[in-house]
Amino acid sequence: MRRAFTEELQFISDQLVEMTRLTSTALDRATTALLTADLELAEAVISADDTIDLVRRDLDSRAVDVLARQQPVATDLRQLVMAMRMSSDLERMGDLARHVAKLTRLRYPHKVLRGPLEPMFTRMAEVAEDLVAEAGRIIANNDVEAVPQLLVTDDEMDELHREVFRTLLADDWGHGVEAAIDATLLSRYYERFGDHAVSIAQRVVYLVTGEWPEEDLHIEERMDVSRVEPLG
Amino acid sequence: MRRAFTEELQFISDQLVEMTRLTSTALDRATTALLTADLELAEAVISADDTIDLVRRDLDSRAVDVLARQQPVATDLRQLVMAMRMSSDLERMGDLARHVAKLTRLRYPHKVLRGPLEPMFTRMAEVAEDLVAEAGRIIANNDVEAVPQLLVTDDEMDELHREVFRTLLADDWGHGVEAAIDATLLSRYYERFGDHAVSIAQRVVYLVTGEWPEEDLHIEERMDVSRVEPLG
Repeated sequence: MRRAFTEELQFISDQLVEMTRLTSTALDRATTALLTADLELAEAVISADDTIDLVRRDLDSRAVDVLARQQPVATDLRQLVMAMRMSSDLERMGDLARHVAKLTRLRYPHKVLRGPLEPMFTRMAEVAEDLVAEAGRIIANNDVEAVPQLLVTDDEMDELHREVFRTLLADDWGHGVEAAIDATLLSRYYERFGDHAVSIAQRVVYLVTGEWPEEDLHIEERMDVSRVEPLG
Repeated sequence: MRRAFTEELQFISDQLVEMTRLTSTALDRATTALLTADLELAEAVISADDTIDLVRRDLDSRAVDVLARQQPVATDLRQLVMAMRMSSDLERMGDLARHVAKLTRLRYPHKVLRGPLEPMFTRMAEVAEDLVAEAGRIIANNDVEAVPQLLVTDDEMDELHREVFRTLLADDWGHGVEAAIDATLLSRYYERFGDHAVSIAQRVVYLVTGEWPEEDLHIEERMDVSRVEPLG
């Protein structure tokens, strides 16, 4: 019984790590499509999101099944509950990658990003992919020691988000309101993608230590517009 | 044992309904603060969000506790898992109300909304509060018959979201990029608030019928920018 349970948990953990790979790939391809106005690639990202949703559904069904059959308590129970929350984060990250692809498709054959924004979003995507890769390693190894570094990486995401707003609000922004609206939404998608990676890391901390990280009480602050907009 | 379990479930359901009231109040007050540039009220909404977070944490602890002590299976188990997902939706709705309040605070003493946007956001808030009130009734009474009406109400939210974008992109929008960025983010906050109410309703449908509503496979479509932006 115990061995079966351990195997089930390992399988679920492996599936979560697989989901980090799928969402990373999705965002990578969505960003390439965005930067090159590649309609075909955008369509591929949109279709591939169904796979992420299915993996999530399968993972959650298994977790509920294990709950019902094995009746875990204490740490074992917490692990399953947290796995379901992490799968929810990862599914949402897939949705955000799809949002990037859909905006790409909407503006095709034009590029969505104007002027100085391209390098910023190139970097945002790299940071976002670093974040989800770190989250995957943290899940795989229960590596809570790696969490502070992930938070530092997320700080760079927040700084990039601020930089986008500064660019849109600069006197020499000459690309109009539509391009500014698009960049606002895109910037929020990438930032939220990063926030979900942070959330996953914090759930692992909770599992390993039994304590929510101090920061988590205000985890939503990390994604708060008034923290990242230098507009006050 | 069975009676204790039924009482626990009823308590959890009551707490979910209480959370729908708290989030509705939060959005109502945040909207008043937004429309009147009321700094004090905005601060009150920001502080009050801690209460919603605490209720959510308490609810989740209880659900995990019931899982551990009562070892439910089948429908009972599903109810607890779904209650935790609904509490997550409701906490996020509270965060979105807080985001509205924070943007209000950021722009104080100026109003965030310009020109013709005020009546649109007044209506968005009414629709959002209708949605969460309907979600509360659906939870309280397992009233899946009311779900189609809730989806119709959410369609009005999507239409308002489109109307905001049309306004920002019209030739006579003379309020500049910053006001357009603010309105873009705000519109997304209200729309997402509504999406979470839809998500709650669909979880109740799943609990009652055992089937995900057809629509749910693409539930995220409801919140997709390319569906609501008439910019193609």
